[in-house]
Amino acid sequence: MFDSFDSVGARGELDLIGSIRAWLGSRNPPSPEGIGDDCAVFLPPPGTQALLTTDALSYGQHFDRSVSAREAGIKLVNRNLSDIAAMGGTPDRAILCLLFGPDLAYAWLRDFVLGAGAAAEKEGLRIVGGDISRLEKGCFTSMLTVFGHSGRPLFRGGAAAGDHIFVTGDLGGSIEGKHFRFRPRLREGRWLAEDGRCTSLMDLTDGLAKDLPNLLPESLGARIDLDRVPVDPAAQRVAARQGGDAMEHAFCDGEDYELLFTVSGDTEASAFAAAWHQAFPDLRLSRIGQAVAVPREGRVLDHATGRPLPWTRGFEHFRAE
Amino acid sequence: MFDSFDSVGARGELDLIGSIRAWLGSRNPPSPEGIGDDCAVFLPPPGTQALLTTDALSYGQHFDRSVSAREAGIKLVNRNLSDIAAMGGTPDRAILCLLFGPDLAYAWLRDFVLGAGAAAEKEGLRIVGGDISRLEKGCFTSMLTVFGHSGRPLFRGGAAAGDHIFVTGDLGGSIEGKHFRFRPRLREGRWLAEDGRCTSLMDLTDGLAKDLPNLLPESLGARIDLDRVPVDPAAQRVAARQGGDAMEHAFCDGEDYELLFTVSGDTEASAFAAAWHQAFPDLRLSRIGQAVAVPREGRVLDHATGRPLPWTRGFEHFRAE
Repeated sequence: MFDSFDSVGARGELDLIGSIRAWLGSRNPPSPEGIGDDCAVFLPPPGTQALLTTDALSYGQHFDRSVSAREAGIKLVNRNLSDIAAMGGTPDRAILCLLFGPDLAYAWLRDFVLGAGAAAEKEGLRIVGGDISRLEKGCFTSMLTVFGHSGRPLFRGGAAAGDHIFVTGDLGGSIEGKHFRFRPRLREGRWLAEDGRCTSLMDLTDGLAKDLPNLLPESLGARIDLDRVPVDPAAQRVAARQGGDAMEHAFCDGEDYELLFTVSGDTEASAFAAAWHQAFPDLRLSRIGQAVAVPREGRVLDHATGRPLPWTRGFEHFRAE
Repeated sequence: MFDSFDSVGARGELDLIGSIRAWLGSRNPPSPEGIGDDCAVFLPPPGTQALLTTDALSYGQHFDRSVSAREAGIKLVNRNLSDIAAMGGTPDRAILCLLFGPDLAYAWLRDFVLGAGAAAEKEGLRIVGGDISRLEKGCFTSMLTVFGHSGRPLFRGGAAAGDHIFVTGDLGGSIEGKHFRFRPRLREGRWLAEDGRCTSLMDLTDGLAKDLPNLLPESLGARIDLDRVPVDPAAQRVAARQGGDAMEHAFCDGEDYELLFTVSGDTEASAFAAAWHQAFPDLRLSRIGQAVAVPREGRVLDHATGRPLPWTRGFEHFRAE
């Protein structure tokens, strides 16, 4: 990554920007829609609300040398698209900022941008501008800001007592590979927005234990049916290797990139699940519990025992030293 | 900046995000318009085109310890707003990404965000989201992505042979202080967009010598009347100190953040200038030349001699080592 003969420092800004445009190909439309003027210009779909989100991916913090440049580029795009999915939205345009030391390998940068471009292409996202900037030797960081739209965005905080709590896919152990191989749940998010029975929605990035209290309004807690929490086999492998409990990993590991949402309590949960499975036969849906008025015991309780679940920590991004 | 007792590394992510929200105050509206959900949501003004732009500001590359945190924060916002001005647009929303080592002083970060918030407030820009991310010790970099709108954006490349070439303010020597104290020409850009006589527009960031060829379509060059190029007194001071010619600094220094634009050739230049001065009595406007079919001699000629001007280089952001 940083020890190549052909490093980016041997090239000027214009050369690098030209290379990035070439690597992005059709994912970067011509100016004024894409790179080339002071701003990128586009017409937002009329009658929709605009969605803005951003996420970074840095060498040393979010990935290391065991990760290929292409995987890193794909992840930068997909973690942002997961935020658009978490609003029930559709991605439109993105701005890509790349910061790196002069010793970064040109081929590494190429594969990163090709990965990002491929992930963007898959979901119809256009990368219309950005910036490159210099960092110290040995550094690489990337930030993507995505602009999307939704006719009827879904928010956090919309649940009422009695609402069902659902989660897609399997939870925990994403460090085993899923954190680079996940698919942003865009179609599923849009389906939920159109279906009308979903009362709140987010994507799971910091672990169920940390994210669930952020989904519910402060006046609500949850009773969780542990038998229904979909523990990923990877969480079991991590637990076997590192010690601890697989269920703890399902609650506390970051980067599931699954959807966590509530459905109106007057909905028949099994009918909702049946409609879901007709739309998405290959993606597990689990009704893991129910929103309740905040119990005296704590915000997230074990449905079987009525006692608070022991896992309250999630993934902390900017950990103190 | 990096040697304080109270460094950001002593605080967790939630603490820092809470601090940043508090520092931004009313510039950060409540969720879902601002920070707090997976995306920030807003309604773009109907019937307008959306503008997207981004720019970074990094310690060591764009500023050093001689610059106050507040000045740096103001500059990050204003250099982005200058890109919105360069389209004749109005800024709406911004996403702020901050990357720093754990040894960054908490008070420095506070003053940076307060500076950015004050600059945003001045122009009605709302900072609705962002990301913080960890870098190596001793590092700080910031990126802002701004979303704006325009009913009739002005682009580069719209000039025809015979169009007048205008520039606002004075050029060169911004290193003497203007590069931190400039005002983005938003009102002026909107005036040009509404006036209807402007055929192309950009902001001067890399120096007239490098930017002018990027304003004109490839089929055109320019004849420049050197007597009318507004050389900043600061350019004269820099020339006296560093050697070289003040006019060279007016052409080649970066970060003027003035507007460079063309006006239709069938417009009476003096009538246009009179209208300008009525709208902006305090901002100098100079008609520095005329767009012409690309002459055999080169793209930018001295009007008096018909010979190419000797200055072809501008500010290069990502310089090779």
